[in-house]
Amino acid sequence: MSENAATKDSAIVRFRALTTQIKHYEELLGVVYWDMRTGAPRKGIAQRSEAVGTLSSEMFRLSTSAEMGELLDELDGAGADGELTDVDRKLIKETRKEYERNLKIPPELYREYVVLTSQAETEWEEAKAKSDFKGFLPYLKQIIDYNRRFIALWGVKGTPYDTLLDMYEPGTTTADLDRLFGELRHRLVPLAADIAQRGDKPDTAFLQGKFDKAAQKRFSLYTLGQMGYDFEAGRLDESVHPFATGLSTGDVRITTRYLEDDLTSALFGTIHECGHALYEQNVDPKLNGTPLCGGTSMGIHESQSRLWENMIGRSRGFWERYLPELKKEFPAQLEGIEAEAFYRGINVVEPSLIRIEADELTYNLHIMIRYEIEKMLFNEDLEPERLEEVWNAKYKEALGIEPSNAGEGVLQDVHWSGGMFGYFPSYSLGNMYAAQMLKTAERELPTLFEDIAAGRLLPLKEWLTEKVYRHGKMLEPGEIIERITGEPLRSDYLCDYLEEKYKAIYRLG
Amino acid sequence: MSENAATKDSAIVRFRALTTQIKHYEELLGVVYWDMRTGAPRKGIAQRSEAVGTLSSEMFRLSTSAEMGELLDELDGAGADGELTDVDRKLIKETRKEYERNLKIPPELYREYVVLTSQAETEWEEAKAKSDFKGFLPYLKQIIDYNRRFIALWGVKGTPYDTLLDMYEPGTTTADLDRLFGELRHRLVPLAADIAQRGDKPDTAFLQGKFDKAAQKRFSLYTLGQMGYDFEAGRLDESVHPFATGLSTGDVRITTRYLEDDLTSALFGTIHECGHALYEQNVDPKLNGTPLCGGTSMGIHESQSRLWENMIGRSRGFWERYLPELKKEFPAQLEGIEAEAFYRGINVVEPSLIRIEADELTYNLHIMIRYEIEKMLFNEDLEPERLEEVWNAKYKEALGIEPSNAGEGVLQDVHWSGGMFGYFPSYSLGNMYAAQMLKTAERELPTLFEDIAAGRLLPLKEWLTEKVYRHGKMLEPGEIIERITGEPLRSDYLCDYLEEKYKAIYRLG
Repeated sequence: MSENAATKDSAIVRFRALTTQIKHYEELLGVVYWDMRTGAPRKGIAQRSEAVGTLSSEMFRLSTSAEMGELLDELDGAGADGELTDVDRKLIKETRKEYERNLKIPPELYREYVVLTSQAETEWEEAKAKSDFKGFLPYLKQIIDYNRRFIALWGVKGTPYDTLLDMYEPGTTTADLDRLFGELRHRLVPLAADIAQRGDKPDTAFLQGKFDKAAQKRFSLYTLGQMGYDFEAGRLDESVHPFATGLSTGDVRITTRYLEDDLTSALFGTIHECGHALYEQNVDPKLNGTPLCGGTSMGIHESQSRLWENMIGRSRGFWERYLPELKKEFPAQLEGIEAEAFYRGINVVEPSLIRIEADELTYNLHIMIRYEIEKMLFNEDLEPERLEEVWNAKYKEALGIEPSNAGEGVLQDVHWSGGMFGYFPSYSLGNMYAAQMLKTAERELPTLFEDIAAGRLLPLKEWLTEKVYRHGKMLEPGEIIERITGEPLRSDYLCDYLEEKYKAIYRLG
Repeated sequence: MSENAATKDSAIVRFRALTTQIKHYEELLGVVYWDMRTGAPRKGIAQRSEAVGTLSSEMFRLSTSAEMGELLDELDGAGADGELTDVDRKLIKETRKEYERNLKIPPELYREYVVLTSQAETEWEEAKAKSDFKGFLPYLKQIIDYNRRFIALWGVKGTPYDTLLDMYEPGTTTADLDRLFGELRHRLVPLAADIAQRGDKPDTAFLQGKFDKAAQKRFSLYTLGQMGYDFEAGRLDESVHPFATGLSTGDVRITTRYLEDDLTSALFGTIHECGHALYEQNVDPKLNGTPLCGGTSMGIHESQSRLWENMIGRSRGFWERYLPELKKEFPAQLEGIEAEAFYRGINVVEPSLIRIEADELTYNLHIMIRYEIEKMLFNEDLEPERLEEVWNAKYKEALGIEPSNAGEGVLQDVHWSGGMFGYFPSYSLGNMYAAQMLKTAERELPTLFEDIAAGRLLPLKEWLTEKVYRHGKMLEPGEIIERITGEPLRSDYLCDYLEEKYKAIYRLG
């Protein structure tokens, strides 16, 4: 493709074709990864990982090719400027950044890493099911080792871990996170302690039933519909670790996990992933097929999933409207439960082992633990062999409880098996972005919570589409939050929100 | 990949790497095609088709690249011969053939065609559901037009249609098929007439019930297990048009279609696709990852699906063993039905509209109709606008019945929407290959039908693995049938088999 076009077209036309080719490969690999995590036969995984490695390497080769370098140099010059659209200019900037980064990695090293992580995700699933930390350790050691080598090749600015953070939340450093997490700790730890000592603990007995999987699935589908998820541009499946994947604006898939003894896992998991999906489904169609079609950072992405999951999905108003619907599926289990009791029950604060099932308040402690461990791995050369021990000690210290096995401990998250070191802070950043955005939304949509209590979720979806979703990667995370709220990211909106919410729930004066 | 390797490695090493790269791309595209036909969201199809077009074009570019030409020339010389394995030699031969063919197609034309057919399969599904021939006609016209242009570019040997046939059954010509179909017509049309006039028609009332989909699915899964389908190397899904796809020996997927008012559709559809899957799962692992990993021709492939579906799955012995199992799922519907009655009922001969639900005898007439229409399209320039009219007239003439709409007529098959003109004859070739192979199997496995009646299906699977499956594309179709049976393909084994079977069922002296 690119070879043929090279002879006749202008630089921008060739550049658009080359970046589109890379995006197309990414889309196809996205389908294959989705498939590997939703039911691909296990005997095919090793061979599939090789095939994935081959195409990923080709993407990598294209993104670091001499042709790419020449096109970027030509387009960075002033000559072509008249021809360029805003989208082109942003595309050039982002592609340049990735070009410079990728150029530092030897292609063979990259290929090995892709094959390794592609296979490791499947191995992780098994190791998690068997709580077999030792069995997964060889993979983990290799993945960490590759990341350490990548950091050395990319070059360290600030601390080594900063180099990883920059991939998920451009511009955010360890110093920023130390400050933000410090502020969160300063206000949230006392709040949690106050709740534990003086709070009026909600009743959660009604959540301890047996909840038929088919009924849970029906309610998940119903909720997605209410949130404005477009089923003609997506589908809901099951996987060990729930995820959302945006392959194009017309194909944004969600997975969830149904636990028969836990109603809330699939319920809030589905709403969470739907928040991601609404973002990807509502990017401006003019960005479709370009590398700018997608969320701008993991922090902003998580702001959308966690805003929908917690600030809407765990709000009082939401359950005024939707508890009667949920009762249609589970009449016996929820008999006599009123909206207020349900609301309090699903917002119980409790030290727990599993991040994705944690309450909004202690959730940030789960993230802090991962953040601290990742910093140790990359800034202090923590030995991977010690991960389980360090993990357990940190849970003991921060939450007062300890995993009884690796499946509910250090192996619980998929991220490390895919090499996603530096991702976890995005969740707490997301919580902070979300609280800050919500403050503005409440001002600009004066009937927001009345609407939600009446089952009108679409005005909020439209507001977020206008402010966040449609821009795709055209705006940086910092630009988004400043444009919406008039100021940079701050931790106190989240602290205020949590304080107000939980003081009321726990009846603290 | 190939670029880097080019500098240091020998020709055969570079050749293996390049053909593996192409095979890897084919495997990834296989996953994407499977996904498109088992539930990909419709709003993503147009964009996905572009992405598929991009990667298919790249495969095409690699297979016709100057590097490929140079490697083939170098390897065709005698110098490298000492290094070459048998697999290498066959790989060189097959790659050369495809290279010569692909070199004649302009890459842009190829890309357009891939995007068109990829999108057309989804459009076909809708058009079929709505019986909208006119709506699908624009796609069909373009696909036919592309095929006519391809034939002109490849060059006509014999007749234009021969050029298409050669892709699915190398070496088979229109002249061969005219002869073979002529022989089939000569013996099978009188047999069908005799059955209609004098036969003792089996009772089929018990097949007209309502059959729960979940129960059908359970029985499909059970049957796959009995046949030795490896579920760790495959999965069963649903699609509008059932298919099997071999992505690697470790990932061979099947789809089926459950009709609540028709027990036999999923039952025999599943066995049919499992026949294809056993072939692909049992190719010698040493061929895995090479382009030789897969069935050698569509005729041999269909011989396996149709041997299992009809000669085993519709045999008397099979139902002696498995009717009691089927009754566990459908006790009311099958109450009082004995194996003999069931066997006769599922083998009723009846002119019908839908090929994939036709009995073994009239099935070949369905194929003849398609063969004749395809010949008209490519050898006599039939206008695509006339396809529905010609289709209906041929059904009227050959089977005495006429479709009431395009969904049960000209739009019933997926093949043409994917551009697969020249494929249909493979089904009847498959029937002939299968009958000829079975004759040898009965001699070499003297307890074959006793085994089947006792539920021991694996000896046959192992015999076929030894004789057919393990060879992959290492042997030509003609070599396979000659090695097994000692003679080339003949029509009379099929005619003998059908005569014997149906005279007994219809109690004709």
